[in-house]
Amino acid sequence: MTLKVSDIGEKELVKYIIANSKDITPDDTAITELTSTNLISTCDMLIQSKHFPETMSYFDMGFKSITVNVSDLAAMGAEPLGFLLSIAVPKDLDLDSFKELIEGVLSACSYYSIPLIGGDTNEASEIIISGTALGLCDNPLLKNTCSKDDLIAVTGDIGLAALGFNLETPDNIYVKNAIRPIAKLREGILIKDAGASSATDITDGLASELHEMKRNGFGFMIYEEMLGISDEYKHLAEKLNLDYLDLVLHVGEDFELVFTISEDNLKNLSIDYKVIGKVTDSDSIELTLENGLVVEIKNKGYEHYVSE
Amino acid sequence: MTLKVSDIGEKELVKYIIANSKDITPDDTAITELTSTNLISTCDMLIQSKHFPETMSYFDMGFKSITVNVSDLAAMGAEPLGFLLSIAVPKDLDLDSFKELIEGVLSACSYYSIPLIGGDTNEASEIIISGTALGLCDNPLLKNTCSKDDLIAVTGDIGLAALGFNLETPDNIYVKNAIRPIAKLREGILIKDAGASSATDITDGLASELHEMKRNGFGFMIYEEMLGISDEYKHLAEKLNLDYLDLVLHVGEDFELVFTISEDNLKNLSIDYKVIGKVTDSDSIELTLENGLVVEIKNKGYEHYVSE
Repeated sequence: MTLKVSDIGEKELVKYIIANSKDITPDDTAITELTSTNLISTCDMLIQSKHFPETMSYFDMGFKSITVNVSDLAAMGAEPLGFLLSIAVPKDLDLDSFKELIEGVLSACSYYSIPLIGGDTNEASEIIISGTALGLCDNPLLKNTCSKDDLIAVTGDIGLAALGFNLETPDNIYVKNAIRPIAKLREGILIKDAGASSATDITDGLASELHEMKRNGFGFMIYEEMLGISDEYKHLAEKLNLDYLDLVLHVGEDFELVFTISEDNLKNLSIDYKVIGKVTDSDSIELTLENGLVVEIKNKGYEHYVSE
Repeated sequence: MTLKVSDIGEKELVKYIIANSKDITPDDTAITELTSTNLISTCDMLIQSKHFPETMSYFDMGFKSITVNVSDLAAMGAEPLGFLLSIAVPKDLDLDSFKELIEGVLSACSYYSIPLIGGDTNEASEIIISGTALGLCDNPLLKNTCSKDDLIAVTGDIGLAALGFNLETPDNIYVKNAIRPIAKLREGILIKDAGASSATDITDGLASELHEMKRNGFGFMIYEEMLGISDEYKHLAEKLNLDYLDLVLHVGEDFELVFTISEDNLKNLSIDYKVIGKVTDSDSIELTLENGLVVEIKNKGYEHYVSE
């Protein structure tokens, strides 16, 4: 007989998590010693039917629930301090699946060097994971503090996960990015240290994030040819009847960082990056297509309530 | 036509919350300046069908979601620092109901002087509220650090909410405690400052919390006559065919604090409290009934997975 989580009881589930994480204080709250700096805190809730593709393993669900929160720390250039996890699972979930989920959580915590310091378990009709990531940062990198003539850059290829969500073949970079995205924590710290003027993580698509980063009186010009969209990418999108620019601009979920930085400061930056455009004073967000035409990039990011 | 939250879109919901809370940084994460001390952090997830009685208003749901988390800060004797709120609501929820919920959240934040500094919104089939409370404390009050011969005390009447969950008449102290419990934040700080040796908040029932507080080699003796159970209470329980001691010991949800403190230090304590027993070396948790009989208090607290 396969054990269900209901055979075990909530306190035993908590004990299981605590026994597998050396950083949790088994008391009412976590306790973290602090020195004088800024506490960086962020929370994100993931719901199985909304956020996890059906093909995703329990391990990957756990891993992603850490990644989405750590990615916000990365966007601030913060050092990780601790993670709190509230998790609800159906009572008939296999205990092995629950353990796999927690393994994913702990594996991600270890990967990002962010200790799991507290949490809560619950029962629900589907898996719900709400995480809070805590970090420290003396000078956090805000999202809407760009300067005119700054370059706009990203930490890697964008749009890979967007395509991956639509592919059925598992062994490729697109599906890999969709299933196991990685937050750019180290990159965020190095971008801040290099003197970037602003940054955010691309969760809802480049277009949506650029609209978040835009200040009054400033604009962005992005160049399609700088986005590095491969022929393979265009070909796969076409086969799926999807607009490749839509995928690249309006989906997100790669958890790359987009940041603005002066040309001088960019020389200090020792990570892989891709310059994709420039801060202007146009007061609008525009894209120069490969054919030379300039179009406005609208904000049609990812909104759960309106897109369904 | 009544507006649904789906008519508005997630970003507008977030804007609504931000516009109504002056403490949220509209960036990737919250930023909180720190001096040298301990960061106290805790999270709790509430799910409509499990945690909210059907008669509960949206305002009270919002209020309680803050209370359950702040109560953990209270149990540590921590000063409140900030609150992060992840909330999921059904897409067809009335916008007015959503606003009422947030009003409850903000009203509680104001009541406890804990600023709402961040959050996340989502869509789900029922209301899910996951909160993270952050606090500061130089010497947090742990739960399993009692000393022999300490007195055991509580901050108020326990078992009121337990009875209230079973009553249909609305205007009484029992239902009031079930619907709008209040965390004992100020009391927790004063209990710590008075020199209590241990404390926790009573969420799952006195019995369950005493089992959490028990150290190897130590025991607790509780006296029924010190619990202050009124004749009215016993009478109402009897009418409902409920065991009044079961209600008092095994339900919780009043969010009173239970703490251990030396007789000397108790003299420093300037709040209302009720001594209910003493720390012994019996290595078991016992109750002296009004008739003089001594019985063991078992741990049959509230476990979502096994109690249903």
